[in-house]
Amino acid sequence: MAPAHDPPSPASQEHAVAKPLVGPLSALDLARKIDAGGITPAGVVELCAEAIAAREPEVRAFAALDVARARARAEAAVAMLSAAPLRGLPVGVKDIFDTADLPTAYGSPVYAGHRPAADAALVSMLRRAGGLLLGKTVTTQFAFMDAGDTRNPHDPAHTPGGSSSGSAAAVAAGMLPVAIGTQTGGSVVRPGAYCGVAAYKPSYRMLPMVGCKCFSWSLDTAGLFAAGIIDVAFAAAALTGRDLRVDRVAPAAPRIGLARTHIWPEASPAMQAAVELAARRAQTAGATVVEIKLPPVFEDAFRAHAAIQDHEVHRALAYEYDTHRERLGPHLKAHLAAAVDITPEAYDDARRVAKRARHALADLMGEVDVLLTPSAPGAAPRGLESTGQSIFNRMWTLMGTPCINVPGVYDESGLPLGVQVVGRFGRDRAALEAALFVERAVAPASGA
Amino acid sequence: MAPAHDPPSPASQEHAVAKPLVGPLSALDLARKIDAGGITPAGVVELCAEAIAAREPEVRAFAALDVARARARAEAAVAMLSAAPLRGLPVGVKDIFDTADLPTAYGSPVYAGHRPAADAALVSMLRRAGGLLLGKTVTTQFAFMDAGDTRNPHDPAHTPGGSSSGSAAAVAAGMLPVAIGTQTGGSVVRPGAYCGVAAYKPSYRMLPMVGCKCFSWSLDTAGLFAAGIIDVAFAAAALTGRDLRVDRVAPAAPRIGLARTHIWPEASPAMQAAVELAARRAQTAGATVVEIKLPPVFEDAFRAHAAIQDHEVHRALAYEYDTHRERLGPHLKAHLAAAVDITPEAYDDARRVAKRARHALADLMGEVDVLLTPSAPGAAPRGLESTGQSIFNRMWTLMGTPCINVPGVYDESGLPLGVQVVGRFGRDRAALEAALFVERAVAPASGA
Repeated sequence: MAPAHDPPSPASQEHAVAKPLVGPLSALDLARKIDAGGITPAGVVELCAEAIAAREPEVRAFAALDVARARARAEAAVAMLSAAPLRGLPVGVKDIFDTADLPTAYGSPVYAGHRPAADAALVSMLRRAGGLLLGKTVTTQFAFMDAGDTRNPHDPAHTPGGSSSGSAAAVAAGMLPVAIGTQTGGSVVRPGAYCGVAAYKPSYRMLPMVGCKCFSWSLDTAGLFAAGIIDVAFAAAALTGRDLRVDRVAPAAPRIGLARTHIWPEASPAMQAAVELAARRAQTAGATVVEIKLPPVFEDAFRAHAAIQDHEVHRALAYEYDTHRERLGPHLKAHLAAAVDITPEAYDDARRVAKRARHALADLMGEVDVLLTPSAPGAAPRGLESTGQSIFNRMWTLMGTPCINVPGVYDESGLPLGVQVVGRFGRDRAALEAALFVERAVAPASGA
Repeated sequence: MAPAHDPPSPASQEHAVAKPLVGPLSALDLARKIDAGGITPAGVVELCAEAIAAREPEVRAFAALDVARARARAEAAVAMLSAAPLRGLPVGVKDIFDTADLPTAYGSPVYAGHRPAADAALVSMLRRAGGLLLGKTVTTQFAFMDAGDTRNPHDPAHTPGGSSSGSAAAVAAGMLPVAIGTQTGGSVVRPGAYCGVAAYKPSYRMLPMVGCKCFSWSLDTAGLFAAGIIDVAFAAAALTGRDLRVDRVAPAAPRIGLARTHIWPEASPAMQAAVELAARRAQTAGATVVEIKLPPVFEDAFRAHAAIQDHEVHRALAYEYDTHRERLGPHLKAHLAAAVDITPEAYDDARRVAKRARHALADLMGEVDVLLTPSAPGAAPRGLESTGQSIFNRMWTLMGTPCINVPGVYDESGLPLGVQVVGRFGRDRAALEAALFVERAVAPASGA
């Protein structure tokens, strides 16, 4: 393995411009201010309410909102602050999670006005941690490809990405300090990149999926959005009680594997430059950077993702397909019609490929702490019909590894790019620490 | 490893009496008769309705029944018979699975009268396969230990086992040819043993859990009940489209590992005798039988089951615990109160133990096709308060391996015993074939 290319071509360089973060509310800063008495939970709710009043008419990130209830709960939160790691912070939850006190439509007209009987487990965890459920955020239909109304806060003519469209956009527009989403292909990392915020897909099943509308039980993974890496790590630690915070000590210099992968040519010149810029700046800041060539089993795993997802969704959404077919979005309807052809044998073969690739990845990551790879093919595409492609994410989702979008790099038109840090399964804290190291290296001004 | 003990002690021998199966309706026989024009789906519904009229007042296996709708659907089923592998057979579904057209209470007063918005995936698969949903079967509260009203069809003063109480009892009483249950500890295999029917817990996630009320996402596994092994294999093949039928050729003689495990002394003399009888008769019929001593990691895995289950249920039933605590059964309420103490670190440790045990099991099963072990500590205990213990099941549930209760052995009082065949992960067909071999060896008269 050779060192990362350095210097990059001048053509690439001009597309990758570091630009300081503006807009998002830092969850950690707000929590510290609440602790210090500089603001109350009710005051944070008002901050969010003001941003929502200003930005929501254009951004359209919310499927349901309940500011009044959040205000009432903010008062109650003060009493529990010492035992509440989320400290009365408003949180948005993708409308693919059940909530007993807010409508839950899964992005579909089939479920318009649906009121689940119970909260999803993650929603209960959020409440237990002292978080204030401020609203449900827009999802594509059943978290697939049929887009909702949300627009990219950086340019409303562009998609925010999907399927966690509203969660990424709401955080990017400063309407919420923390939002919850899910990823089956690339639905956390990609909208995080398109909207220029930190997005963290933890190791498979670190966050419970109970009460989340299932698309593919082997792949669906809950994740978090926040302003920066320290914020998303703070929120994850607060929700789970795990030792995930990375704001207390300077991150150690990681060993980074630059993984261009076999689809590198499908990344835009700006994205290629962003990844190379991140690698170069991380190296300058003290990281070890080596090029990693993934063995061929990962190309098989890339394809296996589709077989696993499609075999499972044919069953997971069987009721909707069999009973409400004409009310499904065109992408989903066509996809489900084709999914019937994935035989159990093809599915089992795909699972065996995934297992082989996971073993290969564990071997490969004995030499590095994290991989660095694109978060998306490029900046958010123009238009709202397509939410973009998950080609740089889906194989990692299948691996079950922590994946983090590191924000802070922009293309020449000012749209966010993002680089993806992929960690080892179960080593989420190390992945977050490496992501923080890269974030600071890329945009030193944004470091705390 | 020494050969299985043979002969057993005379004291044990007198407790293990082979007795022919009576009562249950054979799903495969009914399917064949439907194919041959000997009976219609409507006729099978009437057979079940008659058995229900005769036995249900005593057995109390159903939480909800809809014979009228099953009759109507039986008429429609005739038209789809050639494409319907379940061929219009009535099926009962444990009331832990969502059904859009039958109430779904999860065994709890919290959800009395609840009507889910969608069918569970397995219910849709059942309908797609041509099965007729005849009713919801009684579950313990949230599939834990607070018992429902169901009684053992062999003696109403005894528990049918839990948590899939109604599914096992309904099949045993001839009220249904097929029923669906779930197992988190031993809730398929144990009630199958107590009620004297074939019970099959497939490899983890062979059957989808979407729309099934979650207790522990790493453990909850759907399973099937039917009269005998060929029936349960037929039903599994029909539901999944997998090559699982074992009725077409005589089963090959398996290599059987007799696994007494470290809790063997907790099995009753009758159960010990039943397992030894099954081993001896299988050997006489041509099987290779060796004694398997499980390495110590399986004792750790036995304990790890509790940590994994409890950490997960604290989150999976968070809404119910936080919002409806006083309406939960005493066992569940106490269990959830204690579950808060399982830290993420203890949970992660338990998952690592489970992983090590799975690797050890895969190594160990290079030498044998299946393990033979008790299905339960003994016959169904007297009384309806306790549904019995899952100590002989929970470690295998954690391993994710196929587990099958082989019926056909009874204790001296006439109550069913059952021996458990444990297969290799993903080798469900081989496990079913071995279970059929054991079933025929134990009770030759019941062989097809």
